[in-house]
Amino acid sequence: MFNTLFLPELREMLAGENRAELEEFCVTLNAGRTAEFMEGLEDMEIWQVLQFAEPERRAEIFGYFPEDRQVAMLGLQKAAEVAELVEEIPADDRVDLLQELSDHRVDEILPLLPVEDRRDIQRLQSYAEGTAGALMTTEVAMLAENLTAREALEELGRQASELETIYYLYVVDENKLLRGIVSTRQLISSLARPSRTLGEMMESDLVVAHVADDQESVAENVEKFNLLAIPVVDSGRQLLGIITHDDVIDVVREELAEDAQRIAAVAPLEEEFLRIGLLTLSWKRGIWLTILFFAALLTAFALRHYELELERYAWLVWFIPLIISAGGNSGSQSATLVITAMTSGQVKFRDWPTVMKREVVVSLMLGGFLATIGLAVAVTIAPTPFAALVIPLTLISVIVCGCLCGGALPIVFKRIGLDPAMMSNPFVAGIIDILGIVIYINIARAILG
Amino acid sequence: MFNTLFLPELREMLAGENRAELEEFCVTLNAGRTAEFMEGLEDMEIWQVLQFAEPERRAEIFGYFPEDRQVAMLGLQKAAEVAELVEEIPADDRVDLLQELSDHRVDEILPLLPVEDRRDIQRLQSYAEGTAGALMTTEVAMLAENLTAREALEELGRQASELETIYYLYVVDENKLLRGIVSTRQLISSLARPSRTLGEMMESDLVVAHVADDQESVAENVEKFNLLAIPVVDSGRQLLGIITHDDVIDVVREELAEDAQRIAAVAPLEEEFLRIGLLTLSWKRGIWLTILFFAALLTAFALRHYELELERYAWLVWFIPLIISAGGNSGSQSATLVITAMTSGQVKFRDWPTVMKREVVVSLMLGGFLATIGLAVAVTIAPTPFAALVIPLTLISVIVCGCLCGGALPIVFKRIGLDPAMMSNPFVAGIIDILGIVIYINIARAILG
Repeated sequence: MFNTLFLPELREMLAGENRAELEEFCVTLNAGRTAEFMEGLEDMEIWQVLQFAEPERRAEIFGYFPEDRQVAMLGLQKAAEVAELVEEIPADDRVDLLQELSDHRVDEILPLLPVEDRRDIQRLQSYAEGTAGALMTTEVAMLAENLTAREALEELGRQASELETIYYLYVVDENKLLRGIVSTRQLISSLARPSRTLGEMMESDLVVAHVADDQESVAENVEKFNLLAIPVVDSGRQLLGIITHDDVIDVVREELAEDAQRIAAVAPLEEEFLRIGLLTLSWKRGIWLTILFFAALLTAFALRHYELELERYAWLVWFIPLIISAGGNSGSQSATLVITAMTSGQVKFRDWPTVMKREVVVSLMLGGFLATIGLAVAVTIAPTPFAALVIPLTLISVIVCGCLCGGALPIVFKRIGLDPAMMSNPFVAGIIDILGIVIYINIARAILG
Repeated sequence: MFNTLFLPELREMLAGENRAELEEFCVTLNAGRTAEFMEGLEDMEIWQVLQFAEPERRAEIFGYFPEDRQVAMLGLQKAAEVAELVEEIPADDRVDLLQELSDHRVDEILPLLPVEDRRDIQRLQSYAEGTAGALMTTEVAMLAENLTAREALEELGRQASELETIYYLYVVDENKLLRGIVSTRQLISSLARPSRTLGEMMESDLVVAHVADDQESVAENVEKFNLLAIPVVDSGRQLLGIITHDDVIDVVREELAEDAQRIAAVAPLEEEFLRIGLLTLSWKRGIWLTILFFAALLTAFALRHYELELERYAWLVWFIPLIISAGGNSGSQSATLVITAMTSGQVKFRDWPTVMKREVVVSLMLGGFLATIGLAVAVTIAPTPFAALVIPLTLISVIVCGCLCGGALPIVFKRIGLDPAMMSNPFVAGIIDILGIVIYINIARAILG
């Protein structure tokens, strides 16, 4: 799994304290690949190698290790060395990392950081998880609008190493109020007229995020407007930081994984699967499992209600799981398709008649096909071929009901402001379980008399 | 839903052919917002407004409309106007759009384009859907390595308007073989030494995509190495194009939505939900539904096998759906959690002992809780309190089995090279349906004698 190509050489270099070669190893490859080649080393060994890199480069390589290894290294190495590294880690990432360390450890490291970084960390820590504030970085190019294109480029050159992105310049007034944005693209395109000022070039119709905005709506805007970064402002329009495209991918991933979990009736974990406490995990699974359990309990009472029919035609019992699962599976297919189509913006509320019409056609095709197989099996089991008709007729009705429920409920839930991914499948399952039994017994009554 | 603020004014301007105001409307706001304000207009009206924008700006605004509206406009407006617009659309997007038009329409438009664009379109069309080639754009800054930083910046300024991104410069030799990459960040940082050449600055340890690479593995690399764009090369390392970060977000979205669909036992749609043919849709749902149906059919035979027990203890029948659904739901929760954790890289094969240990604990907690509720209900229904014990004992066993199956199967499927999202839930459901019945009847036999 790990790239082990360089491990023996690296260990030899460390043992021989071969400064020149280790320094070269740290700069030759690109930072991501350098980290990859070290993945097979122990945390202690990685740390030793990293000490041979320039501080900035060291932080860059360090950033490519998985988060748990980063946390382990920050937690165990010498506080002075750790502080030196933390100073160079991008502002948004280092806040996330520090949150994973023990309070005691953080208290050791913080005093070793420059005042400015310390203040920055405390400010970023104050924003609630899941908001734009918690996602942003404060390392942003803020420039005055009277700078010329040439002056701006030179200023950018000086600041470049400290900025997360240099591809948008944020034009602010003396109170840091955001006035406009100039892209580096514009700056470079206008090199022919180097005396134009930022104020003349800047776009002032801006897409911004407010610091308390939900991270998903921020990600939506970045995607919609194809941005490399979005500025984050407070209610007075003071520029606080920016959120960059790589953080947006993480939000999209998180959001869609949560959708998949909700569809399977798990409340979103909000933590890593292997790290979340087992009690919390049981709670997040248990609430929905319990709701589903009560829905399924209704089937027990329904079946008891039909006691006489089931005793008289014992063979009906054998098909109960088949019928319920056919309805449930087709319903959860429909629900999932509509939910994913809504998340990606393909289905809006106004599309509901189209969705329903299509579900009717598809469910008749699916139901017809499965009913045919069901009939073939039922004639071998039922007392008469005529009695066997109960099975295909029930299957087709239950599958049509399943698809219509599954197609409609997510749209209804979204319309009334509930989360469709969260609510749909449990409800579909519950409704179909009970409806399936009622339909089954009533069709049986009609046919068997 | 639409922003209707400007609609009356826009229609008035169109009716009065008010050139100055319409031209101003097209440039005042940022392009995304301009498109937003027009969303409530008819396609024909949007097209008329767009004619008042400069060609480049026109394409930019056009790019913010939903794909189906873009296709509708390209399909119906004057071929000459359409060709003028198509020329300005980014190379990767226009290929996707042309694919949606009728062959006849494409034949009308292509001859009106400059030879170079035509050739470019044909080349891009030749790459298979889902590969790096189909995702890339050919508008990339290729420069020679003997250019100085200053010369490169000036060259970039000239080309800027035609490039999809100006933030990486690709250094190529005379045969377009990729030699290295210089970021605009480096270029700007080294403005103090403007005579350094690209060759001296360039990073030559490159992360590249091959033109036939699967788009998901490309997206993975872009995320892993935090790139704004990744170069696409052929087998001879000739630079063919680049894939930019915004296309990567789309791939991630697509991939995760497909995962959610697979989890719900639907073969990935690969087309928009409302546009996919109903026969294709039925097929993509039907194959898995049929497999699940056959699995559920086994339950009918199992129940027939236990005919005597079920006749003797008729009340056992009432709990069958409850038991099967409790096992199935907890199993699909586990499977979905493990699948999403694997997709996001949180769970690797080596973690399987941890996953299983955690599943055991969680399933005992969940099972214990639901068994308690089950017991409370069963004592009111079963003939004796002792007989009622069958229900909680079965529930806890089935839930533990469900969680272990659901936790293990995705890891196993991934290990043997099958798609875990595709295979897990159907298998879990099938296994639990049948296992649930076997466990139930055997516990009943043991307790009821």
